[in-house]
Amino acid sequence: MTPRPLKAIAKLIGGKLIGKGDILITGICGIKEAKPGDLTFIANSKYLSLLESTKASAVITSTDVRIAPKPVIQTENPSLAFAKLAAMLLGPEGERHPQGVSPKAVMGKGVRLGKGVAVQPFVVIEDDVVIGDRTVIYAHSYVGRRSRIGNDCLIYPNVSIREKVEIGHRVVIHSGSVIGSDGFGFATVKGIHHKIPQVGTVVIEDDVEIGANVTIDRARFEKTVIGKGTKIDNLVQIAHNVVTGSNCILVAQSGISGSTTLGNNVVLAGQSGVVGHISIGDNVMVGAQAGVSKSVPANTPVWGSPAKPLRKAKRLNAALQRLPELTRTVESMRKRLEQREAKR
Amino acid sequence: MTPRPLKAIAKLIGGKLIGKGDILITGICGIKEAKPGDLTFIANSKYLSLLESTKASAVITSTDVRIAPKPVIQTENPSLAFAKLAAMLLGPEGERHPQGVSPKAVMGKGVRLGKGVAVQPFVVIEDDVVIGDRTVIYAHSYVGRRSRIGNDCLIYPNVSIREKVEIGHRVVIHSGSVIGSDGFGFATVKGIHHKIPQVGTVVIEDDVEIGANVTIDRARFEKTVIGKGTKIDNLVQIAHNVVTGSNCILVAQSGISGSTTLGNNVVLAGQSGVVGHISIGDNVMVGAQAGVSKSVPANTPVWGSPAKPLRKAKRLNAALQRLPELTRTVESMRKRLEQREAKR
Amino acid sequence: MTPRPLKAIAKLIGGKLIGKGDILITGICGIKEAKPGDLTFIANSKYLSLLESTKASAVITSTDVRIAPKPVIQTENPSLAFAKLAAMLLGPEGERHPQGVSPKAVMGKGVRLGKGVAVQPFVVIEDDVVIGDRTVIYAHSYVGRRSRIGNDCLIYPNVSIREKVEIGHRVVIHSGSVIGSDGFGFATVKGIHHKIPQVGTVVIEDDVEIGANVTIDRARFEKTVIGKGTKIDNLVQIAHNVVTGSNCILVAQSGISGSTTLGNNVVLAGQSGVVGHISIGDNVMVGAQAGVSKSVPANTPVWGSPAKPLRKAKRLNAALQRLPELTRTVESMRKRLEQREAKR
Repeated sequence: MTPRPLKAIAKLIGGKLIGKGDILITGICGIKEAKPGDLTFIANSKYLSLLESTKASAVITSTDVRIAPKPVIQTENPSLAFAKLAAMLLGPEGERHPQGVSPKAVMGKGVRLGKGVAVQPFVVIEDDVVIGDRTVIYAHSYVGRRSRIGNDCLIYPNVSIREKVEIGHRVVIHSGSVIGSDGFGFATVKGIHHKIPQVGTVVIEDDVEIGANVTIDRARFEKTVIGKGTKIDNLVQIAHNVVTGSNCILVAQSGISGSTTLGNNVVLAGQSGVVGHISIGDNVMVGAQAGVSKSVPANTPVWGSPAKPLRKAKRLNAALQRLPELTRTVESMRKRLEQREAKR
Repeated sequence: MTPRPLKAIAKLIGGKLIGKGDILITGICGIKEAKPGDLTFIANSKYLSLLESTKASAVITSTDVRIAPKPVIQTENPSLAFAKLAAMLLGPEGERHPQGVSPKAVMGKGVRLGKGVAVQPFVVIEDDVVIGDRTVIYAHSYVGRRSRIGNDCLIYPNVSIREKVEIGHRVVIHSGSVIGSDGFGFATVKGIHHKIPQVGTVVIEDDVEIGANVTIDRARFEKTVIGKGTKIDNLVQIAHNVVTGSNCILVAQSGISGSTTLGNNVVLAGQSGVVGHISIGDNVMVGAQAGVSKSVPANTPVWGSPAKPLRKAKRLNAALQRLPELTRTVESMRKRLEQREAKR
Repeated sequence: MTPRPLKAIAKLIGGKLIGKGDILITGICGIKEAKPGDLTFIANSKYLSLLESTKASAVITSTDVRIAPKPVIQTENPSLAFAKLAAMLLGPEGERHPQGVSPKAVMGKGVRLGKGVAVQPFVVIEDDVVIGDRTVIYAHSYVGRRSRIGNDCLIYPNVSIREKVEIGHRVVIHSGSVIGSDGFGFATVKGIHHKIPQVGTVVIEDDVEIGANVTIDRARFEKTVIGKGTKIDNLVQIAHNVVTGSNCILVAQSGISGSTTLGNNVVLAGQSGVVGHISIGDNVMVGAQAGVSKSVPANTPVWGSPAKPLRKAKRLNAALQRLPELTRTVESMRKRLEQREAKR
């Protein structure tokens, strides 16, 4: 990046400068890896001690950091400030996506491309697909017939989007993900599984980000829906007819079974799972590796397999840790009781 | 779909019509999303109450539904009847697969294609591959040398099939799946892991369906086998030398370690795992997130991590829920016992 | 393979022949599937009984097998001896990789290819990529700009390697894997998740093997690192800024959250998970489905969710199995105690 004085950066992100504003910032970096000249940030108060040891020349902090051994810029949300800064400073480099439509891509009939669309070699876009302005589709991705993709989307290499899928604006899909594969539905008669056609679709709303090697199945009828602003990490499974609310966070390797609905701002931690045909309320946080087997009311954190309200789960877990001791206590009491009974 | 009177549909699926057969059916749909004119179905008696509230004009039910607020078609297996109906009515639309062999695909030497095979652009088929009649291979899929694929198979985009893999008839493989990658086998000497060549193969029998982003490793020697009619959901892992029986159901994110064998009609629920070198008997059902660490006899449902027979697992789980209470009971008894002992 | 006398093979692998060395070996195979003429091996003493039943004509064993019903070759490490033998005998067949650079691949500007590099059709290699000698890149793989791949690497079909990733020598990456996708980092303000740019990279050191459909995210800044000789099984998730030591083994469907570091020779068993921002010491073994929630010192096996030292976890598990019995014991004691109290 172009070197800039710290005070110019403070102004750029609307933060309060404390300390020397004339020092020259030549890079931005994480707090542990930073070197002299770098600006870094502390998002989590658990890292406050690193303020002393970091080699960075300046640090973006929250407003409650009073004394610091080096210049700081105070902001309400250091992560966000840093994210914006990184986008501004590194953007042109980090965002150098391909441009133009390659003659080595294959376009079906009736495909409509918006302005400034980029399509790399070996992309296949089937009949009647509509793609919005400035959307970028990397090599080896596939878009099935009659699917629609909005403006400013980013589809990385080797993504498979099946037919009639609807994708909103500013959606990012990382490599290897599959959107609109058949739901897992069979009617079993005398041990033989007969396929139930999966003729619904998938709707991905605006501002969704989908990690690498994620799978989102199409509905049997109607739609599987990923709500606006929801962020999905790698290797997550979303079964047919699932509907998530807005701004959910689905961490890596979590999975949601068929026809379950999630409210807004639900968090599924890593490797957690949710059974089918239930409802998870707004703001529910599901702990890592938890297995949710029944509906959860809004604002209730849950944990464990099967999942229970967090406080109960923690109480059970604490009691479990003392179980060997409890067993010994009971054994000793049993002996004393028997001795007393024998005495009589 | 073309509108048809309900009685014509009852005849089509061989069901018993109860109520007005003249009403015109204009669509088919899930019970919650149905609108007037739609025909829907109830597979699960837990949804019987929806008979009242659905907006559908008619419903396919099982034979034990006696009274209904609207016309019904009774059948022995409503799911199956509906599946067949959906295939008949929506088929041409849902099944519009590509046709013909694209000149933009790359074919090796000695490739033999059956009648009516479709191969999309950018497919690579290596030397000596044999592909049966009417099989469809979508864009960006890869078939390694000497592999054989049967008739009427459907290989979706971005599938990787390595060399010498054998695939039967009517097999469906969804996008992103990998068949025949090397098994995970190393000989460790003084901390260094030396690769053991994986020179076996994978055999996928007839009527298997494989979900998206599934991985099935080739055997070290001999074969990894997926038995006839087995259905595999998304993101499932099958290690080298695994052999599954017929008509198994492997739900999303489950995994089977090396050299384990499954009987027929085994069900692995979501996120469950099975260790290597064991046998799972016929009709075993493994619960969600269960971890099976030793062989399971036929017809035994198991659950938990480590997995136990279901009744035992439920008993343990119930006892565990009462553990904090038990701990308090023991503590109170201990005090009373001490008081009595002190009194003496 | 070309038939050879057993004594020639014993010499080839430096083992001690016991029994007739003149018998002709016509193939090599696993012990269960072997047929007359085959040479097989026993790596695990748990399979010693198979020495009697195998149809193989000879067996490679460890040095502690004294008496055998057929000729054996004793070696210190039967798996390794067999692995080497398989590579020698089956190598030319098992290792028949493509040759030459296809004119149907797309190369960016400034790409540098080493000697003997093979690139299949429909590969896309972006600007300024450097690829070392004898590396093979299969169809539909993508290499982002400024990435570097070393000598003798093997990149199977449908692999996505994003920009500025560094890959060492002799690295194998199986189909469907994604290296360098964005880390999962967002700054949440009033419920809206703002993307934090992920502008770091991934470094894959020498002799690493990466299974199918694995995801390894790029660091926010700096690097995600996979240490030399580490072997990664299918469907494993490695989050941003993770650093693994040398010779780790990450079994299928395991996952490591952001910024966690692993020492050398760490083993994560199948479906296990590790939270973010912790350290796992050298030689730690994490059990199947375990959930590691805090740092683990070197040489400590752990198990359970949340994970505990193995001995403690086993003790808890054993106590848990007896919990229903304990509950009954307490109930009976409570009654006896009450009877005695009532008597008074």
